[in-house]
Amino acid sequence: MNRQQLFNLIQKKQSFLCVGLDTDINKIPKHLLENDDPLFEFNKGIIDVTHEYAVAFKPNLAFYESLGENGWKSLRKTVEYIRSITGDIFIIADAKRGDIGNTSAMYAKTFFETMDFDAITLAPYMGLDTVSPFLAYKDKWSIILALTSNKSASDFQYLKNENTGDRLFESVLKTSQNWGSVNQLMYVVGATKAEALKEIRKIVPDHFLLVPGVGAQGGSLKEVAEYGMNDHCGLLVNSSRGIIYASADEDFKVKAKEKAKEMQVEMATYLN
Amino acid sequence: MNRQQLFNLIQKKQSFLCVGLDTDINKIPKHLLENDDPLFEFNKGIIDVTHEYAVAFKPNLAFYESLGENGWKSLRKTVEYIRSITGDIFIIADAKRGDIGNTSAMYAKTFFETMDFDAITLAPYMGLDTVSPFLAYKDKWSIILALTSNKSASDFQYLKNENTGDRLFESVLKTSQNWGSVNQLMYVVGATKAEALKEIRKIVPDHFLLVPGVGAQGGSLKEVAEYGMNDHCGLLVNSSRGIIYASADEDFKVKAKEKAKEMQVEMATYLN
Repeated sequence: MNRQQLFNLIQKKQSFLCVGLDTDINKIPKHLLENDDPLFEFNKGIIDVTHEYAVAFKPNLAFYESLGENGWKSLRKTVEYIRSITGDIFIIADAKRGDIGNTSAMYAKTFFETMDFDAITLAPYMGLDTVSPFLAYKDKWSIILALTSNKSASDFQYLKNENTGDRLFESVLKTSQNWGSVNQLMYVVGATKAEALKEIRKIVPDHFLLVPGVGAQGGSLKEVAEYGMNDHCGLLVNSSRGIIYASADEDFKVKAKEKAKEMQVEMATYLN
Repeated sequence: MNRQQLFNLIQKKQSFLCVGLDTDINKIPKHLLENDDPLFEFNKGIIDVTHEYAVAFKPNLAFYESLGENGWKSLRKTVEYIRSITGDIFIIADAKRGDIGNTSAMYAKTFFETMDFDAITLAPYMGLDTVSPFLAYKDKWSIILALTSNKSASDFQYLKNENTGDRLFESVLKTSQNWGSVNQLMYVVGATKAEALKEIRKIVPDHFLLVPGVGAQGGSLKEVAEYGMNDHCGLLVNSSRGIIYASADEDFKVKAKEKAKEMQVEMATYLN
């Protein structure tokens, strides 16, 4: 999926919602634990009721890996299930990988061949070598960490460069945008830093931004839309806990659907 | 395993060798592909013949993930096999994970509970929040990327801070050493930057350093020992391809053993 196709999807669905599948075996409704594959059963339920309101799903790898090979199986089945019920969706591996050369090429193979993800989140610390093997795949995306929403983001991301005066996240944006096109690169920018989106848009006016932190982490969807939207929407706003754990009981699908729809309805107003 | 125990192990084995299990299904001897689990069969062979010369093994996650759930199964079996044949070994997950909060806690659970690793490599971009859940585990280690051996390490790791004049990797070393003790934190420093080890030792005199890049990537073991060793040895030098792919034929175990022994013998001279 390229940038124009993603924008078309956003217009069609009147949504720029990404549903984060941070599926925690300890948080899903207890009745699902009787299944052979509770993670997959939970995801299937969430996907069934939210896909019409979302343009993207984002499984968070940590939650699958914590169950070892069984978790990876749940992850594979989840991606396959999404593909089986709709062609209109963008799937992001929230993996935050960051390695080089042959290792990075193996990660690209994992997420873009072994599994059919559209995109992966990547850490920029090791530079271009981390990202380049992923860029070899047409219509697949690298989503680079820029400014994250956590407290200790300031440990390094705000360090100012002696020569340019740029903070590290600004250096990451300026340097990495030369590595590939707007059809290949996105950036992670936390919603709790909505004001920073104004400055970020000066550096990367045309790129899509993946924005976590709306809802549970306190970010405002309105502010994100106000400061972050561009002429191709340019936003994928993620909500995980606020949707998937809206209820911990047997009505989890009903509640998740309500929350996803609520966000889609609000998003539609910003798109128009 | 704490720092003193690791040092005792190094003295006992007269080695600070880490064997990198970058086990690539496309590079292992062809006759192994007839097995149900070729990755594990290869690792078993390598482990059998090298463990007496090494103090650590380091599976590189990318190579296992590229085979999805089957690869994760090979990884689990590999760790279990190492534990079953020797108590005298340190096992590192070369995973370069880097996430926050609940996600980071899930990664810690994955590598320190679901699987019995002693240590994991971590990316520092998101700051303390990435590392803190791992530090909650006693006698387990976080190995933070500092100065890597790849070409594009200079994209960001050399950016100089406006206030302190420190390059980013120096800021990472200075800030992160306050996050935990020398019994919990190590750093990745590439061997191709052996000269830089002198400066790095001024910042972190007592920490262990995990040093990749000797051999295939061109780093010199002699220089690494000269510039990097401290009074607890303080070095784990990794070799992957130079040992595990010393031969691509049926004699791969014989050749891997020779290469590992060769490195151990050289290391013993530096330890005395």
